[in-house]
Amino acid sequence: MRYSFETEEHDVFRKTVRKFLQKHAEPYIDTWEKEKRVPLAFWHTLGEMGYLCPQVAETYGGLGLDFSYNVVIAEELERIASSLIGIGLHNDIVVPYIESFGTEAQKERWLPKCVTGEIITAIAMTEPGTGSDLAAIQTVAKKEGEYYIVNGQKTFITNGIHSNVVIVVVKTDVNAGHKGISLLVVEEGMEGFTRGRQLEKVGLHAQDTAELYFEDCRVPVGNLLGEEGKGFYYLMNKLQQERLVAALGAQIAAEDMYDTTLEYVKTRTAFGRPIGTFQNTQFKMAEMATQIEIGKTFLESLLVAHMAGKDIVTKVSMAKYWITENARQMAAQCMQLHGGYGYMEEYKIARRYRDIPVASIYAGTNEIMKTIIAKNIGL
Amino acid sequence: MRYSFETEEHDVFRKTVRKFLQKHAEPYIDTWEKEKRVPLAFWHTLGEMGYLCPQVAETYGGLGLDFSYNVVIAEELERIASSLIGIGLHNDIVVPYIESFGTEAQKERWLPKCVTGEIITAIAMTEPGTGSDLAAIQTVAKKEGEYYIVNGQKTFITNGIHSNVVIVVVKTDVNAGHKGISLLVVEEGMEGFTRGRQLEKVGLHAQDTAELYFEDCRVPVGNLLGEEGKGFYYLMNKLQQERLVAALGAQIAAEDMYDTTLEYVKTRTAFGRPIGTFQNTQFKMAEMATQIEIGKTFLESLLVAHMAGKDIVTKVSMAKYWITENARQMAAQCMQLHGGYGYMEEYKIARRYRDIPVASIYAGTNEIMKTIIAKNIGL
Amino acid sequence: MRYSFETEEHDVFRKTVRKFLQKHAEPYIDTWEKEKRVPLAFWHTLGEMGYLCPQVAETYGGLGLDFSYNVVIAEELERIASSLIGIGLHNDIVVPYIESFGTEAQKERWLPKCVTGEIITAIAMTEPGTGSDLAAIQTVAKKEGEYYIVNGQKTFITNGIHSNVVIVVVKTDVNAGHKGISLLVVEEGMEGFTRGRQLEKVGLHAQDTAELYFEDCRVPVGNLLGEEGKGFYYLMNKLQQERLVAALGAQIAAEDMYDTTLEYVKTRTAFGRPIGTFQNTQFKMAEMATQIEIGKTFLESLLVAHMAGKDIVTKVSMAKYWITENARQMAAQCMQLHGGYGYMEEYKIARRYRDIPVASIYAGTNEIMKTIIAKNIGL
Amino acid sequence: MRYSFETEEHDVFRKTVRKFLQKHAEPYIDTWEKEKRVPLAFWHTLGEMGYLCPQVAETYGGLGLDFSYNVVIAEELERIASSLIGIGLHNDIVVPYIESFGTEAQKERWLPKCVTGEIITAIAMTEPGTGSDLAAIQTVAKKEGEYYIVNGQKTFITNGIHSNVVIVVVKTDVNAGHKGISLLVVEEGMEGFTRGRQLEKVGLHAQDTAELYFEDCRVPVGNLLGEEGKGFYYLMNKLQQERLVAALGAQIAAEDMYDTTLEYVKTRTAFGRPIGTFQNTQFKMAEMATQIEIGKTFLESLLVAHMAGKDIVTKVSMAKYWITENARQMAAQCMQLHGGYGYMEEYKIARRYRDIPVASIYAGTNEIMKTIIAKNIGL
Repeated sequence: MRYSFETEEHDVFRKTVRKFLQKHAEPYIDTWEKEKRVPLAFWHTLGEMGYLCPQVAETYGGLGLDFSYNVVIAEELERIASSLIGIGLHNDIVVPYIESFGTEAQKERWLPKCVTGEIITAIAMTEPGTGSDLAAIQTVAKKEGEYYIVNGQKTFITNGIHSNVVIVVVKTDVNAGHKGISLLVVEEGMEGFTRGRQLEKVGLHAQDTAELYFEDCRVPVGNLLGEEGKGFYYLMNKLQQERLVAALGAQIAAEDMYDTTLEYVKTRTAFGRPIGTFQNTQFKMAEMATQIEIGKTFLESLLVAHMAGKDIVTKVSMAKYWITENARQMAAQCMQLHGGYGYMEEYKIARRYRDIPVASIYAGTNEIMKTIIAKNIGL
Repeated sequence: MRYSFETEEHDVFRKTVRKFLQKHAEPYIDTWEKEKRVPLAFWHTLGEMGYLCPQVAETYGGLGLDFSYNVVIAEELERIASSLIGIGLHNDIVVPYIESFGTEAQKERWLPKCVTGEIITAIAMTEPGTGSDLAAIQTVAKKEGEYYIVNGQKTFITNGIHSNVVIVVVKTDVNAGHKGISLLVVEEGMEGFTRGRQLEKVGLHAQDTAELYFEDCRVPVGNLLGEEGKGFYYLMNKLQQERLVAALGAQIAAEDMYDTTLEYVKTRTAFGRPIGTFQNTQFKMAEMATQIEIGKTFLESLLVAHMAGKDIVTKVSMAKYWITENARQMAAQCMQLHGGYGYMEEYKIARRYRDIPVASIYAGTNEIMKTIIAKNIGL
Repeated sequence: MRYSFETEEHDVFRKTVRKFLQKHAEPYIDTWEKEKRVPLAFWHTLGEMGYLCPQVAETYGGLGLDFSYNVVIAEELERIASSLIGIGLHNDIVVPYIESFGTEAQKERWLPKCVTGEIITAIAMTEPGTGSDLAAIQTVAKKEGEYYIVNGQKTFITNGIHSNVVIVVVKTDVNAGHKGISLLVVEEGMEGFTRGRQLEKVGLHAQDTAELYFEDCRVPVGNLLGEEGKGFYYLMNKLQQERLVAALGAQIAAEDMYDTTLEYVKTRTAFGRPIGTFQNTQFKMAEMATQIEIGKTFLESLLVAHMAGKDIVTKVSMAKYWITENARQMAAQCMQLHGGYGYMEEYKIARRYRDIPVASIYAGTNEIMKTIIAKNIGL
Repeated sequence: MRYSFETEEHDVFRKTVRKFLQKHAEPYIDTWEKEKRVPLAFWHTLGEMGYLCPQVAETYGGLGLDFSYNVVIAEELERIASSLIGIGLHNDIVVPYIESFGTEAQKERWLPKCVTGEIITAIAMTEPGTGSDLAAIQTVAKKEGEYYIVNGQKTFITNGIHSNVVIVVVKTDVNAGHKGISLLVVEEGMEGFTRGRQLEKVGLHAQDTAELYFEDCRVPVGNLLGEEGKGFYYLMNKLQQERLVAALGAQIAAEDMYDTTLEYVKTRTAFGRPIGTFQNTQFKMAEMATQIEIGKTFLESLLVAHMAGKDIVTKVSMAKYWITENARQMAAQCMQLHGGYGYMEEYKIARRYRDIPVASIYAGTNEIMKTIIAKNIGL
């Protein structure tokens, strides 16, 4: 199956990416999960292959491809494991901030290395005391001469350990509500910037999530991204793609659970016949096949609209909520259809069950999605 | 909102149809519901307007339009009330049998009157003893000279009272399983053909559903539709459109429930504020808005594929099951959001609640849909 | 099956009630539904049998039985049809106000006739502008000498047409919030008291629900129930039993749907075998059997506690919400298992589907129930 | 809250057990989870305290208490963590086989050490090729003189690593279907008995689950439990208690999730107010409070009936299915209410989410439960 916007070129690209990942990621993913880290070498290889930020303009070392190629990469990574999500975050979420809001000098400095994997990026929004409520952040950046002095703490930062360039959401004006929010690029080695331990999570084990600390951290004013006080606007501007990518990941996760389970129920027997011949299994699989199909169709329509530059924030919120919720429920059902084996780590569904629930939480919780939808339908 | 395959011409057409129905149907629907009948005069007016079988070729008095115009008519009828479904059945389901499988003589005889509303059609499949199991039908047509002698009984026949041309599914060979099934056109006035009383239903009150009886009913051999023994194949061939139309109806029903309820929660107050400002209401409405949006997107993709002549029987089965199930659940939720008023017949949601559950049953129960899907995914 | 608090005496009583209803109600219920009225004669016969307010003390002509006999009567009535609910309302909800808060004179005047059925009672809380928000009612009673002058309007009044004694919730002090609420007994024939038309509902057709109007209605001060300003307190005091009875009704409705459907799937065949041999049917029935069993067990525990005089308002709110919600979902599932027949009025499940959704709305909507529970768990 | 069958003595016992576990288990559970093992020393301490098999008669070193004390121990262990389940398995499931079907000599040999913890037991039913289908097992015991020669493989064995006495379900007659099934007690050190590696599971990390291998394993005929060919009957006989204990564990797990989450939403703030003040949170918590309450009430009624020696296999199947399903869904909802923190291993809900799904699978999958219920309601 091919998206309507895909061409033969995409097919070739997808095959190449898949083959690459089957060779360079799939055999190692269990190890990476155990070691709680995707090796930096893998990032570099991805860079060499052109799979990091393919959208970046050729001027900066990228391939200048459109978003449809990011989609291919994000999907193929997700098919291996959700814990490769940090790569998609770098490609589809963080680097675009630099592309959109960076000065020429900033782009020249960072983008080429983002493409090679020398720079791994992260974005630091959430704080221990604030979940979905961005306006309440307490990380403060006080301008002193040529520097911003940053104090505060961030948590749940994807790529928290690997990243050497972090876009930090700060308050440059504590009295101005969202209008006081700015984006600062903090780089590894800056004084006063330290990382906490890697957080232990239910899943996404190979994904390095961490806390970040800023204690009188001195960030040159030249590291301000865009204008002061416009951070909230920039974040809103980028949320559509961020949430679309979150929905996309959950959709692929769901498809993979389904494929795995379909294979299992076709081959595994109970009471002398394949599990898949029991009506309960048939109906459950038919229901899941349906949910996957309608989820996919919806997603495709959003990808088309997004690439056409449309404002589809309400629909993306719908997709993010519905697809992640669906995927979470499917994980439990697919595990159940596996019987005892589904609970064993050597079966892929086990990892899917552990990895998926956070998709309903990150990139804006599903409750936030519903709040947005409600607002946009006039409630 | 317009489907991707619609043009400005469709917009005009839709507006005209809507305006017509707002004048000629909406003010009378309550009466028709009480009288348990859509008046024949309304059928004739529809015919005059060109709203009956617009797809029929101009040679036979039709407009020769493609299916996209049937979609407009079916949707606008559904928006008024589900109990106008007999018109869609005539347009989109029964008459196409004549168009596809009729001889030139048959087409000339019946189609022009189908277009004017002089002929109202029905299709008689289900029997008291057989629900979804077509191969088990017991209505037998025995050929004697120039006639088939038909004996048997049919039930749940939409347009059962109004119809004067009925395609009856019969067995011309009782020993041949599905290969013994044929389609005979029985016309009003034929000896041995009688109707039972109109069935009393939970909803769809203006829709005349009835039993039909055939006692040594003599049907001229010239009334055989297509070839003997090919009836099952013809039925399968037409199921895709039948189920697509069923899904379409349920989608519009769901949209109408949603629109009605959104309006209600915006204006109705409780505890000193509009109901729609309570988070529970907001989330419920956001969830329903999402289900409607993804249902619509899926449906649109199927309409496109169907009009392109593709075999999308699995996806149509998915749509039929998912959308009708969704609409049924939404009816209960929307009624609940109306509080006590939702239970009062004067509120539209009351009728929606009574009308919708049969959509999960007709045109193949949702259990049959899941069986088809399961089979087609290899289980 | 017998409740733990029932004795052989209850068995005998239940058998007698059931036999009586099988003879005097079951054969006529379809007619009553069509005529939209339970005949007064039936009330009188119930009175003669001792089935009206059996809890009323013998002094006032009652049997002086405990609540467990009300339970038997309410359950057996529900088994015939939900639309006999007005009788339970009289027995278990309205008359207890008179018993608890009436003066000796009031009791002597009204109770004996409540027992014979000469008096049919109603309680008028809801107003067009207020649903669940009692404090917002706008029916005002202004004391002028020996009379209260009542002005206002009530809606959704069960027994609205039959009742000749109505407890009306009024504001005797419009500035005192709930502390201004009082209960006035309005009797048929009082000047300024009129009834609106019977409301047309989705279900409960034999139940006469109506609007009541009070225009300068003169009510003697002697008709005040309890003390002025204590109405809200009285209402709260009686809500536990009211909601328990609502849960009880829904539980019996669910059991009846289940019994009816079990019988149906055992006998009805499809594809050459009983529907009940399909795994989907088996699992659905097993799930419903489970829900019924746990609902029943919970209800029993509440009946025991209620009769022991315990404050179980949180648990009763739980039962009311969960059991009515469960019953509503079961109605749709049971109808689906009936296939097309479930949509025909001659099958009992059809009426159940129409009758049940209001149970999630009356006696405090399920949203109100959840609000109460949340409050009582400290949120 | 106290069960109806509990006395003050139980209160004291429960307090003591709880205090003991708070001191000896709670502080170490994270370590045990990481080390994937409950230390043997903890078993021995439990034995010293009288918390292993308190039901065993005093003659054999036990306390001779009734099952209600096992309930207390099982519940308090579950409150610490689901991965202590191997202790309950020993107490409530395996040892009872020896008590019920063992000879005097067998009891004298094994029971006293079961009470001290010197013997840890397991029961080996499931095989790689058979899940829920006991009749299909392929482990064969061939009698040769004074020995049974056992060949076969078992999997998913709780206490698989720690156990030194294993009741193995074998076929002593491969041609007799269930009538060929027997129970053999295999002891550590017997020739031909080996263990596989500890299985890596999604959760229950401190629980040692393993495969067991039997290669020409020589088991003395004196180790036959009960009679040859009666194994299936013995297993059926003990299933009621096994599944009741499984339901009990899931109920406590659900209660613990609820308690933890209630505490969280009361204290955690978002958008300037406690999460628990949002209506969505309130309603979700109210729904879960309800499910817990009705689950508990049902469970209590079953415990009473079970201790009275009643055959309540259908109801226990209902409880096992419904309560484990409910707990699984609650885990996801509670995690969601925790936001990002719920996904962090340091929050208890994280472990609950990983531990709970296997409860729907072990002790007979929920699909098997529904099959049993369906059969027992006549389908």
